[in-house]
Amino acid sequence: VPCPLITLTTDFGASDPFVGIMKGVIAMRAPAATVIDVSHGVPAQDVRAGALVLKAAAPWFPPGAIHVAVVDPGVGGERRAICVETADARFVAPDNGLLSLAIPPERMLRVVEIADERYMLTPRSRTFHGRDVFAPAAAALATGTPPSALGPPRGDMERLCMPTAARDGGFVHGEVVYVDRFGNLATNVEAAMLPRDVVRVELAGGASLPFVATYDAVARGAALALINSWDVLEIAVRDGHAGAALGLGVGARLTVVGR
Amino acid sequence: VPCPLITLTTDFGASDPFVGIMKGVIAMRAPAATVIDVSHGVPAQDVRAGALVLKAAAPWFPPGAIHVAVVDPGVGGERRAICVETADARFVAPDNGLLSLAIPPERMLRVVEIADERYMLTPRSRTFHGRDVFAPAAAALATGTPPSALGPPRGDMERLCMPTAARDGGFVHGEVVYVDRFGNLATNVEAAMLPRDVVRVELAGGASLPFVATYDAVARGAALALINSWDVLEIAVRDGHAGAALGLGVGARLTVVGR
Amino acid sequence: VPCPLITLTTDFGASDPFVGIMKGVIAMRAPAATVIDVSHGVPAQDVRAGALVLKAAAPWFPPGAIHVAVVDPGVGGERRAICVETADARFVAPDNGLLSLAIPPERMLRVVEIADERYMLTPRSRTFHGRDVFAPAAAALATGTPPSALGPPRGDMERLCMPTAARDGGFVHGEVVYVDRFGNLATNVEAAMLPRDVVRVELAGGASLPFVATYDAVARGAALALINSWDVLEIAVRDGHAGAALGLGVGARLTVVGR
Repeated sequence: VPCPLITLTTDFGASDPFVGIMKGVIAMRAPAATVIDVSHGVPAQDVRAGALVLKAAAPWFPPGAIHVAVVDPGVGGERRAICVETADARFVAPDNGLLSLAIPPERMLRVVEIADERYMLTPRSRTFHGRDVFAPAAAALATGTPPSALGPPRGDMERLCMPTAARDGGFVHGEVVYVDRFGNLATNVEAAMLPRDVVRVELAGGASLPFVATYDAVARGAALALINSWDVLEIAVRDGHAGAALGLGVGARLTVVGR
Repeated sequence: VPCPLITLTTDFGASDPFVGIMKGVIAMRAPAATVIDVSHGVPAQDVRAGALVLKAAAPWFPPGAIHVAVVDPGVGGERRAICVETADARFVAPDNGLLSLAIPPERMLRVVEIADERYMLTPRSRTFHGRDVFAPAAAALATGTPPSALGPPRGDMERLCMPTAARDGGFVHGEVVYVDRFGNLATNVEAAMLPRDVVRVELAGGASLPFVATYDAVARGAALALINSWDVLEIAVRDGHAGAALGLGVGARLTVVGR
Repeated sequence: VPCPLITLTTDFGASDPFVGIMKGVIAMRAPAATVIDVSHGVPAQDVRAGALVLKAAAPWFPPGAIHVAVVDPGVGGERRAICVETADARFVAPDNGLLSLAIPPERMLRVVEIADERYMLTPRSRTFHGRDVFAPAAAALATGTPPSALGPPRGDMERLCMPTAARDGGFVHGEVVYVDRFGNLATNVEAAMLPRDVVRVELAGGASLPFVATYDAVARGAALALINSWDVLEIAVRDGHAGAALGLGVGARLTVVGR
């Protein structure tokens, strides 16, 4: 049997013991599982950022991976805990849209509510379901429990409403959706949406950026646009922090000018 | 033989190679051990915060776990290095109180000073005993060395003096002892100390907070008090950062008003 | 067969999924490998800091370790990707000097350019070779591929030009090269360069520090100099942050006064 692999994506940060405690629970209930951290630096309670991180990461794990995601401002309240199956992975998370970017509708095979007491800790806190619900559910999956045993089937999960880029003749209008630690600005303009010949990328403030293949195609400190590793249009500054240098963040609008 | 599990709790942060080096030493001396990070974001040299993190985390690991904790402002000086045994775990740390909240006196079975050269690196630096003393000691335990072999027995360890909450009729007077990354304020008022009916929680500045079961029992942005996952009273702001919003930190005083 | 060990040193930080994705690629291509994080908190695009971190960490891992380092401002451009062998380890990194402090010329056995398509992902992005080049190369090594199979031999690698300390009679002139999370200032004055009797250490601004064996040899809050765990002269403030307290950072000059 291959060693089951569990990934963790949370907004728990690096200071508190929350992540370590989840790993302790997994070690107790699924000692053979390997745990890999995707990120614990999702901004606190930012479900959209967590969903984007998970969307970017999930395709790069082996088939059979169990992805646990916890960005959970509604913990302890009415929101459900869910397990979602796709053809090659399983996900556990609060049902608040956190999984919805990683799992588009056409890839979703099954949604169940995590409800069976056997696969949770008892008693449960009202503030830390990463420990009490999601870690034990992942451990159950890792030890062979089928998703269908975790609880009753549900027809769908919550989905985030994301801004979508729009084509308009030779133009594509989009916006920044994520800023990474280098200050690079990922947009919602996917590579496949681009015109055949991109002439330039215009920012809302009027600046015009060259569309290039690599960072080093411009001078140090100059701004540029390129297709990044997530296959989306990215605005960057060579050897610099585009977010700070250009004064842009999530929501900033831009237009791709094509020919 | 089950794979021995070692946990790490330090103030070494994420920028420097200190934690990685400890894991390298463990990999050399106990290659079969699994290492889990509890936290490396304990504030620099804050022994009390480290002790609270370890207290919160240690119960959630499997029996037999070896907990290494290094928050060590006295490194290289007179403070001793110790190994402490409980019924279901072993701990290695500097003897500066760091273990004292995780191991109350009634759970302490044995204290030894880590003194045998065979279970340390030679030579030893005067500034990094995480590498030279604590990692090798943990590796020794993980490979079957009994704690008693590490060095001479000691009668006790250093203990932190923590402020304790006090009941006074229908009131409980306590204070904030820990602020987590969400800005939630954990107090020293344990759930078992609460009056049967809590009417409200009053802060030193005069604010009065509802005592509720879950964050979503109040409006977004409103302050509240509840019992958190560590079974202590916590002051929080729904979807917000209570520390910043209320201007409170460690040491802030509060009173639980009961009936 | 022992479980191959891969270490990771990057400037990818803790917020984004970059490190997790590299681990996912390794898990797909070398599922038996153990991955240890050295640091992901190297300052963004700071090749010198990354090189110093790797130099400090690499000696503390078992023989056979595979060290992956990615601080890569030139990603996607002309810089090569290389694999370097020493007697007891292998390294993969961009050829920008990142390996040059960990591997002095006399320890370098072989340099190859990573060029064989079989040991990279196809297609490759122009912005994330941690995922597309370095993780798969490390996985190849971990599964038995010899370095020579990764691509053509190269005569040498890029080397960083580091300031060196200089002896001048009873004096040694050096400078700060690294500041750690405690604010301790590591210098380029190696222990072996010190005069037999060190009288004091003088900072550029005129301050004079005692040269001691341990932090606790001075009063709390006082500045000092000692030999640290990397066997270099370090300037520190007991229980404080020397960088902030003394207003010093990388490049600050100092003189060791001997007798």
